[in-house]
Amino acid sequence: MALLDTDFFQPLHDAVVSDKPEAIRATASEYNAADLAEFIELTQDDGGIDGLKLLQSLPIELQAKVFGYIGPDMQRLFARLIPNRELAGIVTDMSADERTDFFQLLDENQQHALFQSLASREREDLRRLASFEEGTAGALMTSDYAMVSSGMTVAAALNRLRNTAPDKETIYHAYVVDDDHHLLGAISLRNLITSAPGAMVDSLMATGLVLAHTHTEQEEVARLISRYDLIALPIIDDDGRLVGIVTYDDAMDVAEAEATEDIHKSATVGRLETGLKTASPFALYRSRVQWLVILVFANIFTGAGIAWFEQTISEHIALLFFMPLLVASAGNAGAQSATLMVRGMATGDVSARDWGMLLGKDLLVASALGLTMAAAVLVIGLLRAGPAIAFVVAVSMVLVVLIGSLVGMMLPFLLDKLKFDPATASTPLITTIADVSGVLIYFSIATVVLG
Amino acid sequence: MALLDTDFFQPLHDAVVSDKPEAIRATASEYNAADLAEFIELTQDDGGIDGLKLLQSLPIELQAKVFGYIGPDMQRLFARLIPNRELAGIVTDMSADERTDFFQLLDENQQHALFQSLASREREDLRRLASFEEGTAGALMTSDYAMVSSGMTVAAALNRLRNTAPDKETIYHAYVVDDDHHLLGAISLRNLITSAPGAMVDSLMATGLVLAHTHTEQEEVARLISRYDLIALPIIDDDGRLVGIVTYDDAMDVAEAEATEDIHKSATVGRLETGLKTASPFALYRSRVQWLVILVFANIFTGAGIAWFEQTISEHIALLFFMPLLVASAGNAGAQSATLMVRGMATGDVSARDWGMLLGKDLLVASALGLTMAAAVLVIGLLRAGPAIAFVVAVSMVLVVLIGSLVGMMLPFLLDKLKFDPATASTPLITTIADVSGVLIYFSIATVVLG
Repeated sequence: MALLDTDFFQPLHDAVVSDKPEAIRATASEYNAADLAEFIELTQDDGGIDGLKLLQSLPIELQAKVFGYIGPDMQRLFARLIPNRELAGIVTDMSADERTDFFQLLDENQQHALFQSLASREREDLRRLASFEEGTAGALMTSDYAMVSSGMTVAAALNRLRNTAPDKETIYHAYVVDDDHHLLGAISLRNLITSAPGAMVDSLMATGLVLAHTHTEQEEVARLISRYDLIALPIIDDDGRLVGIVTYDDAMDVAEAEATEDIHKSATVGRLETGLKTASPFALYRSRVQWLVILVFANIFTGAGIAWFEQTISEHIALLFFMPLLVASAGNAGAQSATLMVRGMATGDVSARDWGMLLGKDLLVASALGLTMAAAVLVIGLLRAGPAIAFVVAVSMVLVVLIGSLVGMMLPFLLDKLKFDPATASTPLITTIADVSGVLIYFSIATVVLG
Repeated sequence: MALLDTDFFQPLHDAVVSDKPEAIRATASEYNAADLAEFIELTQDDGGIDGLKLLQSLPIELQAKVFGYIGPDMQRLFARLIPNRELAGIVTDMSADERTDFFQLLDENQQHALFQSLASREREDLRRLASFEEGTAGALMTSDYAMVSSGMTVAAALNRLRNTAPDKETIYHAYVVDDDHHLLGAISLRNLITSAPGAMVDSLMATGLVLAHTHTEQEEVARLISRYDLIALPIIDDDGRLVGIVTYDDAMDVAEAEATEDIHKSATVGRLETGLKTASPFALYRSRVQWLVILVFANIFTGAGIAWFEQTISEHIALLFFMPLLVASAGNAGAQSATLMVRGMATGDVSARDWGMLLGKDLLVASALGLTMAAAVLVIGLLRAGPAIAFVVAVSMVLVVLIGSLVGMMLPFLLDKLKFDPATASTPLITTIADVSGVLIYFSIATVVLG
């Protein structure tokens, strides 16, 4: 990002180097928390000392906010560098979900030491939030939400919000619960300030809320927030009690991470814990090697296909000239179809029951594509190898593009049906399947036509 | 989505079929606006009559909200079916950005007719918002934001918000402007209700806001909102005057659309105006054919490479058996590297100045991958073709994986440097480059070693 070039951080850098806490604090106040975190990340290569200096000179609430923005590696580093009591102060001021994420990065000894230094409210919160499985609404949610009780008046509710929630972003939507903490409805701050002070919240609150359970998958949470344009999604436990909320900004992060995972999968890159820049060579190796080796073995079939037609090939060696072009075209058409399907399924545009309609459309599109490409290849064939081979190549082109495209289209549905992730239908996998079938189709037709 | 199966919509369907407006309205009140829009979309195949019946029985504010959620094709259809005066009523109640998007779908005659039926405020708004180029902050922004004047007290500001903005979601952050509409700062409703009524907004407002210009690209807008966890991003014109805001929900939609475009590009699928399900076969054909034909011609080079080594091949026809496996491996490793880079650049994790560091890391990772795959292929080579060819194949494997991976890694940077979209480094393009270089490397080594 252009924003983050060296010039942007120069004043901050100068202030940190000057080593005067007041100067650092004054300069830092010109930056956003996310930018301060970015600056701190940039000091990682030098051991993070300058970053630590910056962090420690900030007001405590800002320290907590910035700490929530910095990446896991840097958080781990700071957990070792910052004295326990000071760290507990920062952690106490963090939002509950970010605090839990940080806590789970630490080893057992560090967790124990930090836990002892926290107040009982934060300890209880941590214990509860840390118990949910990674990737679920429970692990994503925060307990920082505003709440009013059923039976309150508007005036009482406003008073409650003023007193309990001044530092909560989520004050704008207060949840209405009964004495057992069951979620009854929600009321917006907008509604409260524009209603008569004596009215009851129960008569004003919205009911029939969109909500999720603690065990709902995080993709689904992000999809609900996006679909219904929510600022926050309330999360309930199995007894219908409100236990947390997931906010739109966390949903945006989840959506981005899920898109990244899907994009990586499309090229057979497995899960990476961190970004590409911070990932270790070994983590990158591990995320890439599995499918590469699998596909080496899968490609033996293509080689075997070629070996099978050894006689036809040695009699008409000109056929080899067109082989890469045909198998690549099949693979490319298949990759297009598969990518369209996988993304359509990921965004919810396409679902399992649409396969019939999409099959018909894909047949039509792939036929048209195959004919276009056959026309292109016919010209090359006539110029280079004469009418017989040109005919073989053109007919093969229509067939391989059609079959490649259909395999690409159907495989994601099949995988979904078999409870696999449709995104497993990666471009390299489709290409490999297209290679085998392309070779078989091409040389079969050649053998028949050329005798 | 499981939510949207037939059972979910059954009560609504029954009500619509019953043809009683009150029954429809009562049943509809159990659904969210986004769900009602989904139901309406599902009636498109039957001409949208049931959908129209549902829409027309809703209260006008909800009609406007639902109308904003339905897709462009259905909006166009309804624009023809709904009488102009009634349509103007719906359109007046829509949010300014959605109204503008709808307006731009209509042909000139329809635009003119609708324009005449609108009040001057909405006309002015439309004229202004419709003037910005597609894909910029100006085209994405809405003029529905809350505003207070510099010099107001907290009490006066709260009063202003109560009176002018009761239907604005964005009441939670009011922007402070001077008499010429220059943006000075922002103040949250939370801040207002927890401050002394006599305090001045100027002393409470936050300054140094994150903002964008009308001509800022929409990807950048979405990135700013996500990076700084904003609910809304203020947009200013060239004179620093506040002219609109972009809200987080629109940023989520942009981020999703951009991710879809990048994923499609990774498999050489061009821009699609609508989702896969609603796209016409011709639109799909057009989005796919261009690169398929380009790559047919690019693959001629691979064929020419093979033709060049005709003699070596016909003397050692067993070499052909390993060719698909080698060129596919080079392509797969290259696809992985390219995909990692392109996505890293799209999310801002990686920037142009990181290329040196990433090159070093990729060299290390690709060497390790190449050696692993060479070991696998050495075994196959020994079993199938003897030590000489096994040696050629193994050495080639290390080299082609290394070169494929480096091409995949460098091409996105090179494209970026040349002001092309790095996402043009699609998997099929990388595969084609890897095919050519793989064939050349393999048969060159074979020619040298096998004489």
